[in-house]
Amino acid sequence: MAQQDRAVQTRERIVTGAATAFYRVGYADASIATIAETAGVTKGALYFHFSSKEEIARAVIDEQHRRVFESAAEILQATASPAETMMLMCADLAEWLVSDVVVRAGIRLTTGGAIFDPPTRAPYDDWLATFEDLVGRAVAAGELRQGTDPARLAHFIIPSFTGVQLLSDVLTNMDDLKVRVGELWDVLLAAFAEPTRLDELLALRFRIFGPAS
Amino acid sequence: MAQQDRAVQTRERIVTGAATAFYRVGYADASIATIAETAGVTKGALYFHFSSKEEIARAVIDEQHRRVFESAAEILQATASPAETMMLMCADLAEWLVSDVVVRAGIRLTTGGAIFDPPTRAPYDDWLATFEDLVGRAVAAGELRQGTDPARLAHFIIPSFTGVQLLSDVLTNMDDLKVRVGELWDVLLAAFAEPTRLDELLALRFRIFGPAS
Repeated sequence: MAQQDRAVQTRERIVTGAATAFYRVGYADASIATIAETAGVTKGALYFHFSSKEEIARAVIDEQHRRVFESAAEILQATASPAETMMLMCADLAEWLVSDVVVRAGIRLTTGGAIFDPPTRAPYDDWLATFEDLVGRAVAAGELRQGTDPARLAHFIIPSFTGVQLLSDVLTNMDDLKVRVGELWDVLLAAFAEPTRLDELLALRFRIFGPAS
Repeated sequence: MAQQDRAVQTRERIVTGAATAFYRVGYADASIATIAETAGVTKGALYFHFSSKEEIARAVIDEQHRRVFESAAEILQATASPAETMMLMCADLAEWLVSDVVVRAGIRLTTGGAIFDPPTRAPYDDWLATFEDLVGRAVAAGELRQGTDPARLAHFIIPSFTGVQLLSDVLTNMDDLKVRVGELWDVLLAAFAEPTRLDELLALRFRIFGPAS
């Protein structure tokens, strides 16, 4: 293996180890030594790649956002309608949160923004822009009511999803996440679905998220 | 002043100083020395009241929740309808978040739950129970649609509010909080208001939160 490949691999191990450590003991209590130990690298190797714990945390956030956003881009390429695309993206992010420690730790670090100064806003801006575009297309496709303001609705969906996953994490360790995200879509469809398309959109919602609580 | 009064006053100064320090530099970067300096007390006095930074942070969360929940209890005593009571409580919490550093830092510490183990769930449980009760009463009073599930809707309102204030903090330093909470109520009323009561409830919503964005 070339030296560069090994360096990339070590960096990845540090990011995964840090995510695991942050997830287990929290950002404040995860020392550089704990992160190195969890990653299975020496402190020297760690300091070759990162100069501080905050820099490692930012790398976890970046890697989380890259994974989820790449996955979202694939969903965007598929042939689903705009409303279905939004539901599939929400379900996909829920799946990542349940199954991937880097994503879970990265989102926790993002929502726990108080620990960084300035707070991490780039991931939110990316999601807001993506959903503003999709809401606009869902209105144009007649899935959501005419007159729905795309920016305003995106500014409701992204914060709501953020809060839903946060409380699902605190209250049930993400056990009820998929159910609660489905219930978020119940509310969105009740408020914004074009009435003639409601049954069709509700059928998609149940296929994607399953029944409510 | 009696010695006991002075001790209570010192403890209050430490909580306020800690909230200010957490708010300014974040929990992870706020040292005990910084907290003592911000509070205007000696480290000795601080350690007389608290044994660790985490204990101080928990005191900030407790004090935040006490202030806001006492305020909510006063709203509950007033003569407003159940739906209006819920809107007034949301507006009141938004007002506290904008104006009170202990509340703002306490909520940040709560939503940034990753920094504690176990995460802080008591404030969420209190709000969920309060809103489940109020939703049930709003349905009984004919303000919200028959068949609305109180537990499920409370489990949507509290996470949504949590996410809305979190993003308002990150994106606008709380500048748009009142407007965004009003928009949360636009969605809730569109999805759950009893149609014959919608105009009346929308009038309340505009009186309490002002226009949308």
